[in-house]
Parts: sequence; C-alpha cells; structure tokens
Amino acid sequence: MTHINPHYAELKDSFLFYETKQRATDFAAAHPERRMLSLGIGDVTLPLAPVVIEALHRAVEEQAHRETFQGYMPELGKDFMKRAAAANYARRGVTVDPDEVFVTYGIGDDLGSIGGLFSRENRVAVVEPAYPAYVDTNVMAGREIVPVAGTEENGFLPLPSQDLAAELVYLCSPNNPTGAAYSRAGLQQWVDWANARGAVLIFDAAYEAFITDPDVPHSIYELPGAKRCAIEMFSLSKGAGFTGTRLGYTVVPKALIREGRSLQSMWVRNRSTCTNGVSYILQRAGEAALTEEGIRQSRRSLAVYRRSAEILTAALDRCGIRYFGGQNAPYIWLRCPAGRDSWGFFDELMERCGIIGTPGVGFGACGEGWFRFSCFGTPEDVAEAAERLVSVYGQGSDK
Amino acid sequence: MTHINPHYAELKDSFLFYETKQRATDFAAAHPERRMLSLGIGDVTLPLAPVVIEALHRAVEEQAHRETFQGYMPELGKDFMKRAAAANYARRGVTVDPDEVFVTYGIGDDLGSIGGLFSRENRVAVVEPAYPAYVDTNVMAGREIVPVAGTEENGFLPLPSQDLAAELVYLCSPNNPTGAAYSRAGLQQWVDWANARGAVLIFDAAYEAFITDPDVPHSIYELPGAKRCAIEMFSLSKGAGFTGTRLGYTVVPKALIREGRSLQSMWVRNRSTCTNGVSYILQRAGEAALTEEGIRQSRRSLAVYRRSAEILTAALDRCGIRYFGGQNAPYIWLRCPAGRDSWGFFDELMERCGIIGTPGVGFGACGEGWFRFSCFGTPEDVAEAAERLVSVYGQGSDK
Repeated sequence: MTHINPHYAELKDSFLFYETKQRATDFAAAHPERRMLSLGIGDVTLPLAPVVIEALHRAVEEQAHRETFQGYMPELGKDFMKRAAAANYARRGVTVDPDEVFVTYGIGDDLGSIGGLFSRENRVAVVEPAYPAYVDTNVMAGREIVPVAGTEENGFLPLPSQDLAAELVYLCSPNNPTGAAYSRAGLQQWVDWANARGAVLIFDAAYEAFITDPDVPHSIYELPGAKRCAIEMFSLSKGAGFTGTRLGYTVVPKALIREGRSLQSMWVRNRSTCTNGVSYILQRAGEAALTEEGIRQSRRSLAVYRRSAEILTAALDRCGIRYFGGQNAPYIWLRCPAGRDSWGFFDELMERCGIIGTPGVGFGACGEGWFRFSCFGTPEDVAEAAERLVSVYGQGSDK
Repeated sequence: MTHINPHYAELKDSFLFYETKQRATDFAAAHPERRMLSLGIGDVTLPLAPVVIEALHRAVEEQAHRETFQGYMPELGKDFMKRAAAANYARRGVTVDPDEVFVTYGIGDDLGSIGGLFSRENRVAVVEPAYPAYVDTNVMAGREIVPVAGTEENGFLPLPSQDLAAELVYLCSPNNPTGAAYSRAGLQQWVDWANARGAVLIFDAAYEAFITDPDVPHSIYELPGAKRCAIEMFSLSKGAGFTGTRLGYTVVPKALIREGRSLQSMWVRNRSTCTNGVSYILQRAGEAALTEEGIRQSRRSLAVYRRSAEILTAALDRCGIRYFGGQNAPYIWLRCPAGRDSWGFFDELMERCGIIGTPGVGFGACGEGWFRFSCFGTPEDVAEAAERLVSVYGQGSDK
C-alpha cells in the first residue's frame, strides 16, 4: 500500500482565503439584495500597462510563425528576462549576477518549491502574522515551525533574539498582512543574526513597489552581508498587476554557501529537474514591465491603490480604530473594535457594512483580534466602503 | 547552521540534456564550418495553431481593460479549462469530473511537485529507460528507486512481476525515449498489479497525440480500475506545440484513496498552498487547443513529424540499424551500431554525421548501447540527417 505524506494531518483544515471566500459566498447567497464590497484578498483590479500588452501581443505573434517560434525555455529563465531582473536591482545600486536570477511564475509557486533545498531537520522561524503558505509548505515537509510574534508593542516588526532557535527564517517586508515595513536598521539585525548563526533568510519582496519611505529597503541585498544569508523572491503581481498573468523571479546568490555547498548551484539542479521553464510569452511581458517605461506606466495604478489606502485610513481615523500599514504597502492592519476577535469582526463587518475583509488570526495566532483591509478594490468600492465604515463605526454612530 | 537537503549528494553530477547540449556546443565552437543537425532534445519546431494564436491575442487584450481584466486564477484552474480537459477525455469515452482536473504549466513542473503527496518511505519503481526527472525528483526526496528494465527482449515494455517491491510506479506510454507504447492488455496488467497491491501509478501521457494504433490507449483511464490507482499527467507541449508556451493538466481521480485519505483532496490542499494558479492567458490558449478546431489544426504539424519519423526509420532500415518506436510516438530508439556504447555513438555521430542525438544510457542503465532520435526537427534537417546517415552507415558505405 502506498503511504501518503503523514504531515497533511498536521495542517489546519482549510486555507484562510478559501474559508473567507466560502463565508462571503454563503452570505451573498442568503442576501442577494446586498451589494457586497471586497477589501479582502489582495488582488489587483487595474489592467496591465500598455507596454506590457504590446509585448504580450508581439510574443504571441512570434509563436504564430516558424521563423520566430519559441520552443522549450531554459529552465532558469531566458537571458533577456534574467538581465531585466539584474537591471531592476542595478536601479537600487544592488549588483545581482543574471546567473543568480531564477525566473518564476511568481512567489506562490516558488514558496512551494524552495524547501527542496533544505533538510527536514531545520527549524523554521516565521515572522508572524504571515502569509499562510510560509507555515503550511513547511508543515507539509515535516519541519518544526517557530512563530516569531509581531505585536502592537514591537510595531509588528519583531527583531531576532539571541536565543531564537531556527535555521530558516521567512520574512516579508513590506509585510502582508500588517503593512509594516522594516527600516534599514531593523532588517540589518536579521541579516547580522543570520550570518552569525549560519541561518538562511527567505525574503518575500512582493510589495516593494509600494515603498515610499527612503529608509525602507526595496531589496534585502541593499544591506551588507545579505548575499551570504538571504534568498529573495520578487513578483510582478502587485507592482505591475500580474496576479492573473504571472511572472516573478527568485534570487539565490552565489555567495550563499551552507555545509560546503552552493545553494545557487543546488537550485540550478533543482529547477533543471523539477521544472520545464517559464512560458516565453510571459517572460516577454515581464521584461516589458521592468523597463523604465513599464515601471512608469505601472506607477499610475500604484497611485490609485495608494489613494485608496489614504481614504480607508482616513475613515478608520474618523472611527477611532487603531491600525498599522497603509503606507509603503497596500494593506491596512486594524484592531478589531470593541474587543471583537478576528472572525467575529469578519462576520460583523459583513453583516453591518457589507464589507469583506480578512481575519487577522488567519495569519498566525498573534493576529487574533486584528483584521486586514487591502487597498486593491476599485476606487468606487473603496469610497463606498469608507462611507459605510464611518456611518457604522464613526464617532457619534451606534458603535 | 542551516542543513541542506542531503539527497542532492546522491544525484548524478549533471542532467542528461545539459550534458548533451554542452558537448554539442563545444563541438560546434571547435568546428564552426560544420552545419550541425539536431535530432536531440524533443522540442517542437512548428508554430502554434491559428485558433490558439487568436485565443492568446484575445486573452491579452482582456488584460488591457479594466472591464475584462483577470486577476488571481483559482489555484486548481479556471472552470473553462477544467471543462475543456474533461471534454478531451469524453472524446475517448472516458468520464473525468472537472474537479479531478488540475491545470498545470505542463508535466515537467508537476513531476517536480507530485511527490509531495507521498511519504518518503515508498519505494519508487521507474519503468526504464525513462525521462530522468522520474528518478531525480525522487532521489531528491530521499526515496529508494527500483528500476524496472525495458530490454530488447520485452520490447521495452516491461510488465510487473509479482515480486516487484514498490508502492509508486512511473510509466510513460507512448514512451520517451523508446517510442514503445503499451497495448490495452499490457497496460491493464500494470493497473491490475497496482490495484492488487494498493500501489499508485503515475502515468505520463505527454505523447498521446502521436498514437495511431487503435489498440494503444490514449489515457490510462480507458482501462477498468485505473481510477482507483492512477494519476495521469497530460501536456499540450508535443501534441499542440506548447513546449515554449506551457500548458497541461494532471488528473487525480476522486476514487484514488490511500490510507483512508483522498489523494484528490490532498492535492487540492497542496496546490492551494504551493501555487498561485496558472496564467489566465495560457489557460485560454489551452482551451482553444483542445477544441475540435484546435485539434484539427494541430494535426497538420503532427503529420509533418510523423513523416519525419518515416524518413528516419527508412534511413535506419537502409543502414541495417535496429530500432523501436517511430510509430505512435515522435521518438526512434536505435541500437548503436558496431557495439558502440551510447556516449561513444553520440560523439561518433556528431563527428561523422554532424548529427546531435541523445545517448540512451542517459535514460537509465538499461539504455546503454541505445540511442534516441527525435522527429521534431525541421523537414529539411530531417531529410539531410537521413542522407548523412545513409552515406556514412548505409550498406556499402564504410560502416
């Protein structure tokens, strides 16, 4: 008899986004007259930049003709896309060798694979609240999880303690779900801690395009020593609207050596074995998105999402609701009013305001009593949501 | 200190296709005057069908406008694509529920992930010669490999023996690299063996579009009992020219239960956690490729590749070289002449004929002394390769 992976039994029953969607769907079915507004899952709503659309059409047309037809891609990515990624780092003064770049379909897929580099004996520290896949992918692999709690006291930016017992660390800054972003000094503490212990940091840079504060690093490689301890995952999903189009890259630096082996060359071997390369058409889209013009065009969408963050945080201010984020990040992390727990506030907000958000506890135990709004909704929905919030929770209303 | 995955040390140093490419590149650099012909890696050369190109352009245009913009895809695939896959099975009289279909970027990527369903204690039988990833992905996971040898005597279609000690089995039919294809009766023996033992078959159907023999099943689910023991992986790479475009699907039947758990629901959990869905644009391409018109248009390319197989097998006949395949499959599996070993013949063929092929030993020990030609080259290259073969190895030539 085939033995199944025993670690699935240790997973929680259902995935956060699945559960929120289910409750929202059930509620909508029971209340067809209500217009529901989603400040929930972090999905973009504005179209791709014109320069990306042009690149996509061109690449499609190449696939129509024998002379320009593209077959198998190199498993690690086409040179043009690896160079585009390296050029994106060069803009920040960071030198990345194209050979250190691995083109991906986005961070979600690579989070599911990167564990293949490491032994099951490593303990995995997850800076929480966190995207659930950091935990779940490692539970599936049979690794022990060590939560590192973000709290109101540490501004949801916990720093490593000397007695933190872990060999792998997942960090996301600017953070999903809290919107908190490490300063240069804070992130340097993680880098120094990792180098002192020989640990590896897995740094999720999905939200770097939202950074406005000059003291917040866009890449962990802006910090001295990071190439000796960090793997960075980058995505065009949020910054360029690629959630449904898919493209990203992962950087595994050549200087990252553990137990005498180069993780970069191990990852070359892994990807050559476990993948068949990323679609040519999507790589051309990624290249276009990372040109100066592509970045300039995407900024228009980013400005819309930033304006939404301002509108929502202004509404929370009027309601006297405490929050983090909303700057440097497309997320607002708010304290559930009146001592509600996260799922209780989810249901209340759905019922009283017709707003779908995301319960903070779904991102880790330390998220209990907190709640996430995303700023990716349409401007109309965001404005309407802000009004409903103020009318229900605002000063003078029946809170 | 972070511990690396210890099993990488058990992998062979380099991957077959990397090594052949390296030797070919080195040879070409040393002999710039020679026109080299590739019958090597199994990559298509003819463009996508017009109906696929139209679908791609349409999907790209949808991403350009807010009204039609597509964000995150469901991790398991869009309904339209799952239904297209189910309809593709219905053409063969096979009933597959769309919920059993998981849309993928092709078989290569899913082979790298599917092991996550199973414990490391399973022994993995690989029907060899075989695509190297079946072995390497399981070596990386720490599983014991049990080679099941294809030989000239069993027509490279080995059948299960009662004492075969394995809980997982990888099968590819029509086979890469041998081109051999199981008849209904032969494949049924594997299904019955798996059901008797509670083993799981992982069936790679990448080459089904090349089947012409009515006694060769296109899907393992054509056989009674297969849904209780088999996972099937399908790809548009070879049948519709998607090697550089990428799309496929994996079927995990609901009837596949092991140790009391549904592998289909485990795989739902795995994909929801470890992926972020397949690009909308590519799913629309896949849907178009699987329409009646898409299949009809792709058949034109398949006819070209089949004609190439005829030309190459006719040349081998004139050379008195024994071979398998070339029917029901785009590969020809030939006995290296004059007792050469596989890499010896690789070098000889490169030097004497300017032809790059693939050494059979790269697909498993039982492939030693054998060699693979693919039929995906341009018709001009194939014709030229056939002429060179006959002039060097043909009767009366200096063999």
